Amino acid sequence: MPSPSGVIAFLSDFGWRDPYAGIVRGVVESVGRGRVKVIDLTHDIPPFNVIAGAYVLYTSYRYFPGGTVFLAVVDPGVGTERKPITIETRRYFFVGPDNGILYPAAVEDGIVEVRVIENESVFLKPVSTSFHGRDVFAPTAVLLALGTPIEKVGRRLPLDDIARLELRDRCASEGEVRARVVYIDVFGNVALGLERECTSILCAERGRVEVESRSGIFMASCKPAFSFAEPGEMVLYNNSLGFPELAVNLGSAAEVLKTGIGDMLVLRRR
Amino acid sequence: MPSPSGVIAFLSDFGWRDPYAGIVRGVVESVGRGRVKVIDLTHDIPPFNVIAGAYVLYTSYRYFPGGTVFLAVVDPGVGTERKPITIETRRYFFVGPDNGILYPAAVEDGIVEVRVIENESVFLKPVSTSFHGRDVFAPTAVLLALGTPIEKVGRRLPLDDIARLELRDRCASEGEVRARVVYIDVFGNVALGLERECTSILCAERGRVEVESRSGIFMASCKPAFSFAEPGEMVLYNNSLGFPELAVNLGSAAEVLKTGIGDMLVLRRR
Amino acid sequence: MPSPSGVIAFLSDFGWRDPYAGIVRGVVESVGRGRVKVIDLTHDIPPFNVIAGAYVLYTSYRYFPGGTVFLAVVDPGVGTERKPITIETRRYFFVGPDNGILYPAAVEDGIVEVRVIENESVFLKPVSTSFHGRDVFAPTAVLLALGTPIEKVGRRLPLDDIARLELRDRCASEGEVRARVVYIDVFGNVALGLERECTSILCAERGRVEVESRSGIFMASCKPAFSFAEPGEMVLYNNSLGFPELAVNLGSAAEVLKTGIGDMLVLRRR
Repeated sequence: MPSPSGVIAFLSDFGWRDPYAGIVRGVVESVGRGRVKVIDLTHDIPPFNVIAGAYVLYTSYRYFPGGTVFLAVVDPGVGTERKPITIETRRYFFVGPDNGILYPAAVEDGIVEVRVIENESVFLKPVSTSFHGRDVFAPTAVLLALGTPIEKVGRRLPLDDIARLELRDRCASEGEVRARVVYIDVFGNVALGLERECTSILCAERGRVEVESRSGIFMASCKPAFSFAEPGEMVLYNNSLGFPELAVNLGSAAEVLKTGIGDMLVLRRR
Repeated sequence: MPSPSGVIAFLSDFGWRDPYAGIVRGVVESVGRGRVKVIDLTHDIPPFNVIAGAYVLYTSYRYFPGGTVFLAVVDPGVGTERKPITIETRRYFFVGPDNGILYPAAVEDGIVEVRVIENESVFLKPVSTSFHGRDVFAPTAVLLALGTPIEKVGRRLPLDDIARLELRDRCASEGEVRARVVYIDVFGNVALGLERECTSILCAERGRVEVESRSGIFMASCKPAFSFAEPGEMVLYNNSLGFPELAVNLGSAAEVLKTGIGDMLVLRRR
Repeated sequence: MPSPSGVIAFLSDFGWRDPYAGIVRGVVESVGRGRVKVIDLTHDIPPFNVIAGAYVLYTSYRYFPGGTVFLAVVDPGVGTERKPITIETRRYFFVGPDNGILYPAAVEDGIVEVRVIENESVFLKPVSTSFHGRDVFAPTAVLLALGTPIEKVGRRLPLDDIARLELRDRCASEGEVRARVVYIDVFGNVALGLERECTSILCAERGRVEVESRSGIFMASCKPAFSFAEPGEMVLYNNSLGFPELAVNLGSAAEVLKTGIGDMLVLRRR
């Protein structure tokens, strides 16, 4: 079992504007009696966007100390039959809805076991229909952050029962690759759900890649980083979080490609 | 007296963009010599909007541990003769301007006493004309968070002397209710300044409510929660913070109703 | 040497939306083994805007306790030959790129010495080309926050070798002053890179100032504070951070003047 760090890393689509994230911080302070530290990862995951949440968690978790409890609340199914779960991995704990958001990070770190969250004695009551971050997930995360054994959370779930979400595809064909958009940052840079190696595979010959989206076909140059692009040029590189990414210097690749998170693009070596 | 928790919950209209909230955090760290924890509630209260600030404080305070000092800075009257005050309640302390922002939360928890903030020995000097959050309120909040008796803050004020603000009206008439808009969240959901019970009173007969705003008359269905609405449908339900709320699924109720915080709507049972 | 406070004040242009600032907080928690506190100043410095970053740091640093390490990451030159540096001042430490962002605050507090950051043993590896906040600056800031002697960071740099940035000009001529725009806040208020005294010098005669920008010539009244302005009126006053500032009541001075950070305005006593 990871030894508890007293740290909760908190990720949500609550936004910074409304009080929801602040209320969850208050619940952690209350239930944890001041012994648990909350570190905000971000609260601006696009609303209900599980892929973006999974991407942010996957690219961030490794920078946190062992024993950190990741509280990830992007929960379009709140109030329906989707299960609240916690996953113990080799070094961490993950708490959130069973919709795939926890999966890529947990699998990479090495899943030890999965539990359904059903110990109502720790829930805030009455449990609301739409704010399980406050009533269900936060108090459970505190429990784990303080070192309570995971058995207290609920019964074990077979690994095959939880929702899977694969962030990265392999570059099966070297000439043409279908890539899902997994994140778009504030600059409009488009992260692609591909293995890191796909960039060098696609760029191998002439260092140029054709990108097809619903708005048309574009040519991108392969560069070591975003900052090497000419103004207006579309470039392909591995971003600082380890994913192939398309960017337009002084512009927005997402706007040029008219693409959103979850869309598919086709990339061809040129 | 609430036993001090060393925790300040911080709420303002400073925004997250400019350095004002960060400066206040620095003042707390300096004056509190590292012994006081700041928990951000939100800093995106619409500028100078005391009603929205009161709503956020009222719906959030109960999730914080006893002894928390709430520092609430939405202060359109800064630099004028409005008083800076602190309120001790059954379980908490509240610090902010005397404009009603503290009132609904403090009254609900049970006001023990009110003091005017006038102990200049703790102020940051020179006291600015427009940033009392930094110069007056933050150092006073630190004092209380560290357990200094409230008498040190200033002289006692009669309860009748402070500004009142009522967030919730009763459903006087069962057929027709006038409701003030008390908050609009990032999705455009419109929280109504009504008792929780008004929803079931209005929905009692056919589960439908007519909503009149300056943009027209609309029909809303009564649903257990926002997520039960059909796309485009306007629904009425109690939100997760305990207030009746109007929402339009995949749309913005505030835009449809052309309404803002502080406006009055009329709701009729249909 | 300032005695270490275990506090890092963190300032960047990463934004609150993407996970970059959260990842840096995770690195601090990991490297600092839970003994270092991060206080966010802001992450909404306009992207790559070194002047705005320098202004925010300069106007904020004095409110933090002695020994605070300021981690300031606005880094348009990341991946190029610009040096990563740390500055020890009379009371603080500053960590960031050598592009002037640290300079005004450090000079005012009194520079003791400057070191280039080159102790790769503390870097996160592999060091990325574009995210030195995570890989280089954060672990170095932790080192200093925990009291490691600054010699361990790297070799000493002559003070003359670092980039200078002057935020404030004197009012050389009393009748006419050229002023650089150094910050624009969320309300569109325009902070001017002038000594505090310039306001009273410019306002000395009739309490009126002519402002020339590329959009035209405007008349501003001298007022003690923003709140004294009439609706639509342009006013000049010293803001709460100690800088002369232009504002338009119920409007945006930046929009009226069509000006941005770094632009020059001309002010004339009238």
